[in-house]
Amino acid sequence: MTESNQKASRRSFLKGGLALGGAAAAATVARADDPAITELQPWTTQLGEGVDARPYGAPSQFEAHVRRRDVPWLTADPISSVNFTPLHELDGIITPNGLCFERHHGGTAEVDPAMWRLMIHGLVEKPLVFTLEDLKRFPRVNKVYFLECAANSGMEWRGAQLNGCQFAQGMIHNLMYTGVPLKYLLDEAGVKDGAKWLLPEGGDAASMTRSVPLFKAMEDCLIAFKMNGEMLRPEQGYPARLVVPGWEGNMWVKWIRRIEVGDKPWHHREETSKYTDLMANGKARRFTWEMDVKSVITNPSPQAPITHGRGPTVVTGIAWSGRGTIKEVHVTTDGGRNWHQVRVDGPSLDKSMHRFYYNFDWDGKPLLLQSRAIDSEGNIQPTKDALRKVRGVESIYHNNGIQTWAVNANGEAENVEIS
Amino acid sequence: MTESNQKASRRSFLKGGLALGGAAAAATVARADDPAITELQPWTTQLGEGVDARPYGAPSQFEAHVRRRDVPWLTADPISSVNFTPLHELDGIITPNGLCFERHHGGTAEVDPAMWRLMIHGLVEKPLVFTLEDLKRFPRVNKVYFLECAANSGMEWRGAQLNGCQFAQGMIHNLMYTGVPLKYLLDEAGVKDGAKWLLPEGGDAASMTRSVPLFKAMEDCLIAFKMNGEMLRPEQGYPARLVVPGWEGNMWVKWIRRIEVGDKPWHHREETSKYTDLMANGKARRFTWEMDVKSVITNPSPQAPITHGRGPTVVTGIAWSGRGTIKEVHVTTDGGRNWHQVRVDGPSLDKSMHRFYYNFDWDGKPLLLQSRAIDSEGNIQPTKDALRKVRGVESIYHNNGIQTWAVNANGEAENVEIS
Repeated sequence: MTESNQKASRRSFLKGGLALGGAAAAATVARADDPAITELQPWTTQLGEGVDARPYGAPSQFEAHVRRRDVPWLTADPISSVNFTPLHELDGIITPNGLCFERHHGGTAEVDPAMWRLMIHGLVEKPLVFTLEDLKRFPRVNKVYFLECAANSGMEWRGAQLNGCQFAQGMIHNLMYTGVPLKYLLDEAGVKDGAKWLLPEGGDAASMTRSVPLFKAMEDCLIAFKMNGEMLRPEQGYPARLVVPGWEGNMWVKWIRRIEVGDKPWHHREETSKYTDLMANGKARRFTWEMDVKSVITNPSPQAPITHGRGPTVVTGIAWSGRGTIKEVHVTTDGGRNWHQVRVDGPSLDKSMHRFYYNFDWDGKPLLLQSRAIDSEGNIQPTKDALRKVRGVESIYHNNGIQTWAVNANGEAENVEIS
Repeated sequence: MTESNQKASRRSFLKGGLALGGAAAAATVARADDPAITELQPWTTQLGEGVDARPYGAPSQFEAHVRRRDVPWLTADPISSVNFTPLHELDGIITPNGLCFERHHGGTAEVDPAMWRLMIHGLVEKPLVFTLEDLKRFPRVNKVYFLECAANSGMEWRGAQLNGCQFAQGMIHNLMYTGVPLKYLLDEAGVKDGAKWLLPEGGDAASMTRSVPLFKAMEDCLIAFKMNGEMLRPEQGYPARLVVPGWEGNMWVKWIRRIEVGDKPWHHREETSKYTDLMANGKARRFTWEMDVKSVITNPSPQAPITHGRGPTVVTGIAWSGRGTIKEVHVTTDGGRNWHQVRVDGPSLDKSMHRFYYNFDWDGKPLLLQSRAIDSEGNIQPTKDALRKVRGVESIYHNNGIQTWAVNANGEAENVEIS
């Protein structure tokens, strides 16, 4: 931008500050030497593809860099592994279906929906088996929920690690699910007195199981078959998965094939040696299901530097809580000395991702960017140090601490640890 | 289902009727001869693909039939043509990005975002040119809006035509947009006194233009660059399109490259020979921008018959209005003799699609299915005959009349006309 435009933008910023909630504006006068304007572009002079070319659409060729990425050294092989949602490339609160992170324990099961069955058995009056068609005869609901892996940002317990919002924080997605309340299916089977726990099991090669308390299932769990309008993707449990709103992702059993009803938990692998929180004294907290209030700045971040120089700048990020909605988000640019309450935009839905924005005029000096969320229960996202005081640094689960990006004068961002 | 299960389901249906809002339940006892249960399935015994296999995901191989479809004889060629959203395969209110219907006038432009520019000129203090980076420095908002082509269900003016919800009603989608309010850009350029109209122009080979009144732009129009979290798809205007909430889709100029500010409309092709409503007396109504209250049953429908026989049955569909939210939806199974107010489920957002469900116990006799929506302004979706009395049958635009599906005893549905 020229100096005079800089001034004009600054005026707009000040003028519109109140109405836009800290809004900043940027604009450029046409340059006579800009080939984008002086030269005819091919898309303007040539016909494009017709409506028969892509029965199922795909992103632009110019977006090929927007992808889920795994970290090859993170796990022994790519089958029992994880890749990450490119949070720094996304906006709004809906995660597009092609970019939801994957976590498999036995690879992606490719289930034939005609051969899919869901059995409910154990402490029930009448054991039942449902086909997909049976399931679709029950009343359905539509809910937008975040799913976060308990291990999201788990490496941060020991200090700043993976350099990228995608890698440090990308084990989360937020989708509109269509599904049947699990309560309806359990009521149909008739839960017996004394039943208190469920054991959902996945139909993949890992036969994933978790103990889920009955009260949660009766409250808001779903057997979902659609995400963002279409059938679940294979890596998200096609044709049906368990949805456990606000609770850790590992419990959302994919490719679900049976639910056993019992009177006590099963103490299986994924709730003993895994997905428990190892404390400093060597003991482990168990059944820590709820995902606590959390937020992270997605832009700027290590994979998404500020490239436009000083002046009007948009800081954006996401916030969520397994305990309700997000009430407030604060952002600091100076490592926590000054906090600004920022704009939370878009639908505010229970146990769903929220989007926040902070528009400010960057002076070109280094920044220490952090965000801090407060949920509808009044829970405040803690610092990582505050968490460590209570829980030590041995766990890889349930880190909801404040994330810091250091931005240098060139706009480049880095994952750092500050006290 | 066996007879005894039928009775059990019926009991559940009656018992749960109130709580579930007319809920019906269906379930099956395991059959000893069901190979899905007695035989090990490959996805249970073999490892699947790893997390490095699909950096950008795709639907299951078993969903290959879920696709946008064009009707080859509908237009002279597939370049200036249309395909249709498979509404009968979708649920909830979000349309997945790969399945949004396409309407091109010169094919899909494949715009290089580095060469994209948006110019605002004409009656402004300071003509401006924005790059994509400039645009992203302004405050953003996230809104879920339906986009409906004015010609959606347009062939129905002359009676029941295309046999399928996808073909008769599929020129609609509903997405979460991320974008910059157009007002901010116009304010930056400084709209001069006397300005009343805008002419947005697309950067594709058709250079699509429409006259848009300034008041609408200042009220709620967006320059959007994201849909459901990721960058716009090429066929939806990548990298940026105009969003004109509640108004006909043709105005939502894709691949937008300039906006001229003027004092009167331009009377271009798309608002004279096209997208005007030809009345019976030979005169045409112009500038009929708002999309009126409408609904349609998506299941069952001609491409999605009832396959499970009599008993608990889910009727579902969508409703929307360019004038606000949906207040009520009614469904009839007997061609309008008896109407039932049905459950509208999921977020109710302004100028967004709404999802409705009617759970009932089908006795196996033929049905005449219709839905009727009422919006927050109190507008009631009319019958097609009521519309024809006022507007004749010469138009192909703005049909928001009630759609009828006739379901026979085998569960097969057909697009029919009833009076």
